[in-house]
Parts: sequence; C-alpha cells; structure tokens
Amino acid sequence: MSYLPRATRPAPSLAVAQRSLGDPSLRYPLWPPLLEGCPQTSTADLQYPLVLEYDYAAAPPDFFGRDPFAGIWRWAELLPPLAPGLSMGEGGTPLVAAPHLAEWAGFDGEVYIKDESRNPTGSHKDRLNLCAVSSAVLSGAPGIAVASSGNHGAAAAAYAARAGLPCVLFITEGTEPHLLRMVAAYGAAIVPLPRPLRRVLMAELVHRAGYMPVSSITATHTGHPFGPEGYKTIAWELYRQLGDRLPAAVFVPTAYAELLYGVWLGFKDLQRVAGVGPPPQLIACEPAAGAPLRAALAAGRPVVQVDEAPTAAYSIVVGANSYRGVLAVQESEGEALALTDTEIAAAQTALGREGLWAEFSGAAGAAGLRQAAAAGLRFDGPVVCLMTSSGFKDQGLPAPTLPPVAPTWEAVKRTLHEVYNLSV
Amino acid sequence: MSYLPRATRPAPSLAVAQRSLGDPSLRYPLWPPLLEGCPQTSTADLQYPLVLEYDYAAAPPDFFGRDPFAGIWRWAELLPPLAPGLSMGEGGTPLVAAPHLAEWAGFDGEVYIKDESRNPTGSHKDRLNLCAVSSAVLSGAPGIAVASSGNHGAAAAAYAARAGLPCVLFITEGTEPHLLRMVAAYGAAIVPLPRPLRRVLMAELVHRAGYMPVSSITATHTGHPFGPEGYKTIAWELYRQLGDRLPAAVFVPTAYAELLYGVWLGFKDLQRVAGVGPPPQLIACEPAAGAPLRAALAAGRPVVQVDEAPTAAYSIVVGANSYRGVLAVQESEGEALALTDTEIAAAQTALGREGLWAEFSGAAGAAGLRQAAAAGLRFDGPVVCLMTSSGFKDQGLPAPTLPPVAPTWEAVKRTLHEVYNLSV
Repeated sequence: MSYLPRATRPAPSLAVAQRSLGDPSLRYPLWPPLLEGCPQTSTADLQYPLVLEYDYAAAPPDFFGRDPFAGIWRWAELLPPLAPGLSMGEGGTPLVAAPHLAEWAGFDGEVYIKDESRNPTGSHKDRLNLCAVSSAVLSGAPGIAVASSGNHGAAAAAYAARAGLPCVLFITEGTEPHLLRMVAAYGAAIVPLPRPLRRVLMAELVHRAGYMPVSSITATHTGHPFGPEGYKTIAWELYRQLGDRLPAAVFVPTAYAELLYGVWLGFKDLQRVAGVGPPPQLIACEPAAGAPLRAALAAGRPVVQVDEAPTAAYSIVVGANSYRGVLAVQESEGEALALTDTEIAAAQTALGREGLWAEFSGAAGAAGLRQAAAAGLRFDGPVVCLMTSSGFKDQGLPAPTLPPVAPTWEAVKRTLHEVYNLSV
Repeated sequence: MSYLPRATRPAPSLAVAQRSLGDPSLRYPLWPPLLEGCPQTSTADLQYPLVLEYDYAAAPPDFFGRDPFAGIWRWAELLPPLAPGLSMGEGGTPLVAAPHLAEWAGFDGEVYIKDESRNPTGSHKDRLNLCAVSSAVLSGAPGIAVASSGNHGAAAAAYAARAGLPCVLFITEGTEPHLLRMVAAYGAAIVPLPRPLRRVLMAELVHRAGYMPVSSITATHTGHPFGPEGYKTIAWELYRQLGDRLPAAVFVPTAYAELLYGVWLGFKDLQRVAGVGPPPQLIACEPAAGAPLRAALAAGRPVVQVDEAPTAAYSIVVGANSYRGVLAVQESEGEALALTDTEIAAAQTALGREGLWAEFSGAAGAAGLRQAAAAGLRFDGPVVCLMTSSGFKDQGLPAPTLPPVAPTWEAVKRTLHEVYNLSV
C-alpha cells in the first residue's frame, strides 16, 4: 500500500553527517546545512560542496526492492530528513522505451527515456526541492531564497507554497510570460535582476533574514548540500524499472552537475548497501557553448572557467563547472560530451517522433547518445537518457508558421500535400 | 514487476461489442468503431454515442488489486484493444493530499487532487488517445484526424507520432505559439480553420481518406466509442490509491463529458465485477458561460443547446452537452454545477497555494467543491477533484507585472515589503 497519499509522514532519515568533497576525511554535523561549502578546505577561489553520510548498516533489507511509485519519501531512510506532507508525488517518473530514438542514434541496443517532465512542476528539480525545502521547514527558516529563471525556480516556488513559506525568487530580467505566470501561481515574490547580481542579492537575503537558499550562494557552485540527494532516487527507480537490472550508461543533461552527481550517489548506494553493481557509466551532456566540466576533466582540475557562447540550451549553459561533476564522471569511468545546438535540436526532433516533447536543454541526453554511438562508444546493457523537462519550459522560441487554408476540402487536400507532403 | 517498460505488449482485451446509449438493447460488433453514433437510434438532430461491452466474467480475479502505476495498459483486459508499444506511461497519476484546499473550500473532510497534468502531454487526454489511436493502428487506418486547439490535439499528435501515423490537426486560427510548438514537435500537420468548420473538414478527411477521427465528427457529440474507456482507469487508480476505498464524490471539469462518463464506467465496473460499491457521486463542473449539461438535466432532455458566453475556461466551454454526461450524473445520483470565472479563478489560486498549477479549466473541479460545500452538500468519505491539465496550457494570458528593482539590498528589501508584503 506504499502508494497511499495519506502516508506522507516519511520514515526517519538515516543521515548522520555532512562530509567534505574537498577532503573526504572531514565530517561535520548534519545540521545546520553548510550552505557555503566546506569550511576547512574551501578558498576564496574554490569552494568544495558537501555530501551526506548515512548509517548505511541500518538501511532496511528490502530498501532497493521497493516499488518505484511517485513520492520519493518512499525512500526516506537514505534521503535527508523530509518534512511531513510536503511531497506532491515527485519522482516515480515513467521509463519510456524509445526504439525509434535508438535507431535515430545509431545505437544497437535497448534505449529508454526517463521522462522527468512528469514531475509536479515539470522537471527533475522537484526531487531536489523536496529535500532542500524540507531542510527549511525542519530548521525553522522563515522563507526560501532561490536564483533561477527556469525549472529550479518553479520547483522551489511550488514546494515553498506547499510548505506555507514565502519564496523570494531572483530572476533574470526578460523572463518569459508563461514562466512568470507559473511562479506567480505559486505565490512567489519575484525580483528581477541582472543575472550576475542575482546570487549576490540572494546571499544578502540569506545572511540578513535567515532565508534558506536552495540554489548556490557561493562563487564556485556548491548548492544546498541536501539537494542532490533527492536525485539518488532516479538511480533506485531505474534499477527497479529495468527489472532489477542496472543500466550500462546514463546520459545526463548537465550544468552544475547536481543531477549527475545525485544519480551517481544513488548508484553508489546500490553497490555499497546491496552489492548491486557494477554501476553504470555516467555521461555528462553539456552544451558545447560552455562545457566547463569537459574542460575541467581535460585539464585535470577541480573547477575551470570557460566563456559562454549563445545557445538555445539556456537551462544548462554555465561558465564554470561544479566539482561534483568531476567526481561523478571520474568515479563512474564515464565521459563528458559537448553537444552543439544542431545536435541537440536533432535530438529534440527525434524525441518528438517518439511522442516526447523535451525542453531544448532536456534533449541533451538523447543528443549525447547519438554522439557517443557515432564515436564508437559501446555499452553492455540498456542505456537511459534523462529527459529533464518539457518543451513548455523553453523561452523565446517562435511559433511555426502556418499556411492559410481556405475552408474547402480541395484546399485542405492541397495544403496537406504541398506543405506536409501528405497525400490524402 | 508490472512497471517494466518493456512489458508494453498489453494483455488481450475482453471487449466484445459496442452497445448503443440510445437503446441499450442494441449491440453491434466491436469492429469497426462506429464513429457517427448509433446507426439505429440516431436522428439528424441527435446522435447517440456507443459504449463498449466486455466479457466481464473472464476478468482476472486480481484485476482491481493491481498497482496503480503509470501505463494504463496494465488494465488492458477491461480496455479496448491496445496497440503494442504505444503507451508512454499515461495514467498512474499521483493523488495529492490537499488539506489547504479543503480548508479554502470550507469542506470538513479528506480532499485529494488527482493531478492529471502529470500525463505524457500534460493532460488527461492521453488516456483517451492511447485507446483511440490504438484503434487506428489495429484497424490499419492511414492516419489520425482531430479537431482541437488544446489538450486533445496535443495528445492525439503525440500518440500518432509514436504510432508512426500522420496526424492532421484542425485548429482554430489564433492558437497560441507554445501550443503550436508542442503539436509541431510531434510532427502533426496543422490546418488552421474557423472553429465551426473544423469538424466539417475533418469529416471530409475521414470519409475520403479513411483517417481515424479521435474527436467527434457528428453534430451532437459522440466522439470515438473506444476513447472514454481509457478514463475508467482513473476510477480504478483512485480505488487503489485511497487504500482500497472508494471516494464519496469526484468533481470533474466537464465539457462533452467523455471524462465524466469514462470515470463513471470505471466505478460501474468496480461494482459489477468486484462488488465494490456504492459508487461515488459524480459532480460535473461546467463553466457558467455555457453549462449545457446542467441545462439538459434541468430540462429532462438528452441534449440541449445553449449560448456560449466568453470565459477563460476555453477548454471546457461548449454549446451543447453530450448525452454521456446526462447518464453519468443521473446514474451516480450526482450533480452538475455551473462555475463562474470568478469561482474558477479563486480555485486556481487556491491550488497554487497547495503547490499545484492548474490550467484555468482544470481548476473547475476544485471550484465545484467549494460551491458544493457552500450549498451544504455533504459527502460521507474522501472527495477527489480531478485537475485535468497544467497552467502551461492556458492561452493568451498576460504575464504578471514585475516591479523594477535596483540591485541593492535596500531596494530588494523595500520591494519585498511594498509589493509582496514580506518583511525581511
């Protein structure tokens, strides 16, 4: 009966500490969340994120046998402490077989799309925000602060609303009407600012008013240490959805790599707690317009800065990588791919022919599969592309131009033939 | 393991016949689908829809004990024949506890939102289109025809794409860019026409080229006889999601009542096959700008015509009801409520405070709950409001006006106070 919506008081979390990614021997208490990176290893130029430690020995024996229903509180023991009643049935997203996409990608094997657009606010970010907003509720923060003009802001606003907390959303001037309507529907206080200043003013709100930030307030991306933990559930769902099999590779649209790293943590838990392995290769899919993670890996450095070029993949283009991404790719023996807008656009079209409408950025995973297949990468087992968000989230795209059609059968028939190449 | 995406070859359907709603003693073979209503009881003024008959005695004993995962093919025996591989994980949508909404509605009891925006194309229509497009695949139709500028068209286009069939979508001139982008992403051939002519030209395409229509081609709404069967799964999911309990009432945004009637069929199946009852009251929630079902029930007539006034509930305002709605309300001893735009707007706002962003039309169910509570209707058990679609589907709404904010802490603080009444 684990799908009962009434059962939203989650099991107690087994989280016990925060551990530094800068020096894994450094551990800190679980509370309060360390919002500015590891206090001991960070420098002015480089702040290291933290990751949670759990009392893994106490994990229930049936843990990874649980059903992958919506509501990630079902996996509460190996997640950060969750606030009761906050869940809206995030996660448990369908895994959709994608044979046409496999053919398009030139990949000879099973391909699945994990359709994260099916979350409450239409993207994977709901998994993160259940965890991060829970920390605000459980620590008595007076409100939520977030800097985002897209998926992250929408998710933060929705979970803050459900928690009964005010949400201050720092957006970029010029955000599209439909995204403004979305966050306004959740009652967020919207503050438009030039992009580089959003984080700075958000940090003021955090320091002066005690608001809980759910996006990063540090110069090098650290984010909320509890947030990426929510993405572990993707790995656990995939294992169950594939019939207690692991995928051979997971292709992940990547910006600051919170998603990539969280999924990696989930596969590591499967191996550590239940001996289920080997974990899949994680393939980071960045837009070529930035691709700092690929550059960092090539340079052998934890974080690098790159110039950002214009791209339609606005949700995932960033000028500096997060160290989390370096760890996820290296530890999983994966890859970081750089995808051009042309490659991503082709993947978006191919997903549409499979019946799936991705946000442009959300199609980067499928684009990565094709690039990997063309480069001769082979995977011994099913591969999964994460589709992070729906086409509704894209901004500023023109509508297709429609032909004027006279209201007669002959005119309709002619239009179908001449414009759409359909003979009827 | 019923959530395996590979297991998309559905069990054989137990459907055996089409039965007339004009004269329930009249039965027709299951194939071909009767697309213009009951041939014997229909007149030029009134066409009666058909409903499917099943070999109920052959239903598996565990049928209603199945898990409510996404992918309505899990319930294939009591659905029309489904095409293999066509599912995209429609249905299995979360049931979200809505305590704030209950308080807002003045309702003293358990309230849940069934969030149908979590379907593949963002609305309940995916359940219908899996069934209707399956009939095209299984009967060898050369393509799909649909007249819709919203949820139905998007769902038809997506399932047609997945089936590899062309989809001709007759839309109203002036459809919004983001909806055009959505259907174009699925590769639909889009034909803009004045609204009253869409059905007429669609019928030409059906008669001349053999395309399968998935919206109604008759003057009185009949629709595809297989389509509403998909909505039965909502009733079955609710039973399981509530812990093998039935709701006392279900509030349903209603236009041509395919959803209302399909949900009713599902509850009837629960009673007939498994003895689970009594079924809930079904509460049709129409926009007051039209509300022909309410008028038909008051007049004791199968179908009436009404004038349509302007309304923001564009997805559900119609000028004539469908007979299906009359049956669903009468047989369930339910009600038909007429909701003003003011009432629906208030419900949309209340849903937002619960973390749920509804299409304006999709909030009509929640609006109905408040109206019913104010009128003194009482229900002995949990009530469910169907939220049919997301706010992304609304057309032509302006963005909220944002205050200009200088990039200083003092300016941010002043804006939060003056515009959003937040003291930080």
